[in-house]
Amino acid sequence: MTEFIAEGSDVFLYLDQRRTYLVKVEAEKSFHTHKGYIQLGDLIGKEYGTRIASSMDVEFVALKPNLRDYIFKTNRRTQISYPKDISLIILYSGIGSESRVVEAGTGTGALTSAIAHYIKPSGRVYTYEMRQEFQKNAKKNLERAGLLDYVELKEGDVTEGIEEKDLDAVILDMATPWLVVPHAYTALKGSGALVSFSPTIDQVVKVVEALADYGFVGVETIETLIRFMQVERGKTRPQTVMTGHTGYLTFARKAVNAPQQV
Amino acid sequence: MTEFIAEGSDVFLYLDQRRTYLVKVEAEKSFHTHKGYIQLGDLIGKEYGTRIASSMDVEFVALKPNLRDYIFKTNRRTQISYPKDISLIILYSGIGSESRVVEAGTGTGALTSAIAHYIKPSGRVYTYEMRQEFQKNAKKNLERAGLLDYVELKEGDVTEGIEEKDLDAVILDMATPWLVVPHAYTALKGSGALVSFSPTIDQVVKVVEALADYGFVGVETIETLIRFMQVERGKTRPQTVMTGHTGYLTFARKAVNAPQQV
Amino acid sequence: MTEFIAEGSDVFLYLDQRRTYLVKVEAEKSFHTHKGYIQLGDLIGKEYGTRIASSMDVEFVALKPNLRDYIFKTNRRTQISYPKDISLIILYSGIGSESRVVEAGTGTGALTSAIAHYIKPSGRVYTYEMRQEFQKNAKKNLERAGLLDYVELKEGDVTEGIEEKDLDAVILDMATPWLVVPHAYTALKGSGALVSFSPTIDQVVKVVEALADYGFVGVETIETLIRFMQVERGKTRPQTVMTGHTGYLTFARKAVNAPQQV
Amino acid sequence: MTEFIAEGSDVFLYLDQRRTYLVKVEAEKSFHTHKGYIQLGDLIGKEYGTRIASSMDVEFVALKPNLRDYIFKTNRRTQISYPKDISLIILYSGIGSESRVVEAGTGTGALTSAIAHYIKPSGRVYTYEMRQEFQKNAKKNLERAGLLDYVELKEGDVTEGIEEKDLDAVILDMATPWLVVPHAYTALKGSGALVSFSPTIDQVVKVVEALADYGFVGVETIETLIRFMQVERGKTRPQTVMTGHTGYLTFARKAVNAPQQV
Repeated sequence: MTEFIAEGSDVFLYLDQRRTYLVKVEAEKSFHTHKGYIQLGDLIGKEYGTRIASSMDVEFVALKPNLRDYIFKTNRRTQISYPKDISLIILYSGIGSESRVVEAGTGTGALTSAIAHYIKPSGRVYTYEMRQEFQKNAKKNLERAGLLDYVELKEGDVTEGIEEKDLDAVILDMATPWLVVPHAYTALKGSGALVSFSPTIDQVVKVVEALADYGFVGVETIETLIRFMQVERGKTRPQTVMTGHTGYLTFARKAVNAPQQV
Repeated sequence: MTEFIAEGSDVFLYLDQRRTYLVKVEAEKSFHTHKGYIQLGDLIGKEYGTRIASSMDVEFVALKPNLRDYIFKTNRRTQISYPKDISLIILYSGIGSESRVVEAGTGTGALTSAIAHYIKPSGRVYTYEMRQEFQKNAKKNLERAGLLDYVELKEGDVTEGIEEKDLDAVILDMATPWLVVPHAYTALKGSGALVSFSPTIDQVVKVVEALADYGFVGVETIETLIRFMQVERGKTRPQTVMTGHTGYLTFARKAVNAPQQV
Repeated sequence: MTEFIAEGSDVFLYLDQRRTYLVKVEAEKSFHTHKGYIQLGDLIGKEYGTRIASSMDVEFVALKPNLRDYIFKTNRRTQISYPKDISLIILYSGIGSESRVVEAGTGTGALTSAIAHYIKPSGRVYTYEMRQEFQKNAKKNLERAGLLDYVELKEGDVTEGIEEKDLDAVILDMATPWLVVPHAYTALKGSGALVSFSPTIDQVVKVVEALADYGFVGVETIETLIRFMQVERGKTRPQTVMTGHTGYLTFARKAVNAPQQV
Repeated sequence: MTEFIAEGSDVFLYLDQRRTYLVKVEAEKSFHTHKGYIQLGDLIGKEYGTRIASSMDVEFVALKPNLRDYIFKTNRRTQISYPKDISLIILYSGIGSESRVVEAGTGTGALTSAIAHYIKPSGRVYTYEMRQEFQKNAKKNLERAGLLDYVELKEGDVTEGIEEKDLDAVILDMATPWLVVPHAYTALKGSGALVSFSPTIDQVVKVVEALADYGFVGVETIETLIRFMQVERGKTRPQTVMTGHTGYLTFARKAVNAPQQV
């Protein structure tokens, strides 16, 4: 079915790849850009994807925001906000529409949003964060993306323990992931996945050692690079600007009856 | 809840990172490896993730197969079977638990499986393939992964038209994706996503030109690289072996009332 | 023998990796930085590599400038100034202390300097440039680096012909290298090397086709990436900032009696 | 001057990028390949780069071997044989036609050959190796490449000391480079360069710490990646096969009067 923009809907206003805006549609409001303003009420009743001219007659497109748009328009105060990393975390963790997942820390809620999106409608995310102001901001972002119903925001220190049991996955984006490995071992189902994102190689070594101590299998560490192409007949080339590093991803699966398990 | 292995379950027998086996558990059968055989019946009633010794007393772990395990244990007769590419296709296409998606071509069903996994339980994948033997094989793979209910396998040539309407995404892994752009434009919802995977830069240029002709927005082309790390205290280093190229990914979103649209 | 700084010597004043200055030592002069000034006369008679305190008591090191220091402190008005590319051009072109090399265009003289450094003392570089202001600037840079004696700066358009004969290498960093291939074929010795640096893939395709037309062998195109590491026990990681693309390098060698040669 | 092939010359027989042969021309000999044999005497008096048909009428090209050809046709028993690394070592070390350089270990002599080539004709390489059989092989390779006159092959353990003084550069490709840093400090001129090639990040951390202890400046660590392109109009793409890692390169320069220097 064709989807139409309604009062109160979010739209993702697209001018070009660098200038996009996540905006809530309200009948009486206008949205101001340096290319003129847009009467948001004019969008009501239009199909998503409609083109609309600003007061300076510059054309914008009112896209329906998707997961990625929500993630990358949220406050970026913490590290992991790279689609290349988030997408591999989702795929390698094996989670799906019924998974129960613990995440730490919540940070901006970017990764939380992605997990919540993919465990919909029957799964659940338990996300731990110690800093209240982060939690508050993440809650707002999750609410806006329509994902808050699938998430339990918890204030707590996951290095001291995980309250949940029989988890499908534990996903860590925090400074000392190796301290969580014992708790993750207890909290995970047999065969469940642990994923850790770390900027430094020293963190990776410690996590991998902790995983070995607890008999995890399928342990592997990767890094990914993404490069944008500038595509135009006669002038095609990779872009000059590139991110050289975000972090390493370590994956593992829980084996039960581990010899090291006391 | 703890999950137990039953007669008829699949298990993912793990010896090490290079030696893993996707096996159906049957009470009377044994599974032979060069490290001895495993009495599959012994696994029945055990928790997933259990360790089991082979006849040569080599330890295997009986993991519960996840999406990735199914994808990478299916027949690899076609190109796209790289997690780095599949995972970004899923994230960037914006699909989720209710999305309706057209895919072409079906190939081994690897990408089909991933799409089906993430549009569960309320979405649907329509996958086009012209070669019957591929379709047959893909069907078997989807069935094994428990995803066939979410997929409609279609024999047809997507360059001649797409039968579905109001799609959330069209995902292309085929030789001439630019020929599908006009049909994708018609078949997509406003704001819907088109994703194309192509090994050569020439294909990319043609797709990007076709997307511009139809007024798609948010057009971007990327390539990703993945590198495995060898992690061991005192000997940590990236692995020597690396895949240098799989293909380029092009993403776009449909704008409606495109000036170029006749 | 220990080398000492003299009146008129260049020194490469090093504060840290980002703050370095190429300075000529004059007895009565001081060099001003935002970390205080340095009395250059104090360096006279000291060994290269000596530490010296500024007026604000910040320590600098007075290194002897090497090729790389000269290259990267010259005016960067043109494209190729990347050590990863320059160094492979030098190695793959096979040039050495007696080689005769044509280069086009001269640009800032960065690549010219590198070629001149490595064909010392018995080789010669003939470098073509059409824009007088570039030539002038390059001349100044070469003179400062002590390499001008090995270089002939020529004002001319290499797409219209190369005056030299029996060259060991022709090295191209220009917009239309394929137009030079016929002239390079004539100007090179049998077995001589052609190297071309191009930012776009379209340029590469045209060069490779032209090389095939003239029967060149050993044709190969590469790109290189360089990534800086941040090394500190407990915090080691690749740097976030990275250059994603400079250009492609194409290498070839002249075969004589080519069937395609008219 | 045109250069002609003589009795006793080496030629680099080129069939295609993967099939090349370094061969000494002798009047009465023939060289056998699976594409037929070549009468080497027929090459005498011909220009380098000449095309020659084998007995099976397959065309080869008799190139004049250059540095790279010699390096990559020598016995590859040790690690560093990657042009991307060798070329940056040469450029960043700042060496040229008069430099005095210590290298350890000699290995196959691949890097030794490169250094020798670039310090010609007035410089000198002192290369340390503890294993006699390596030294013997390296000597043969250097002799063949015409570079032995510029090299002193030394049997010795550079972790116990360096006999030379006032060196322009110390270049290390060995397991424990940090043990050589104190000796390199003593052996180098002020402002001289130390370069270390190491496969593991652990080695890098130790070297960087040792360099800091001795007050070296300009310390930086990089890694490089090289990717081959498959260039053909309509089918252009990076090659699938790629080397993911060879080693890290660490560079530094000696500052004198270091506070840490006792």
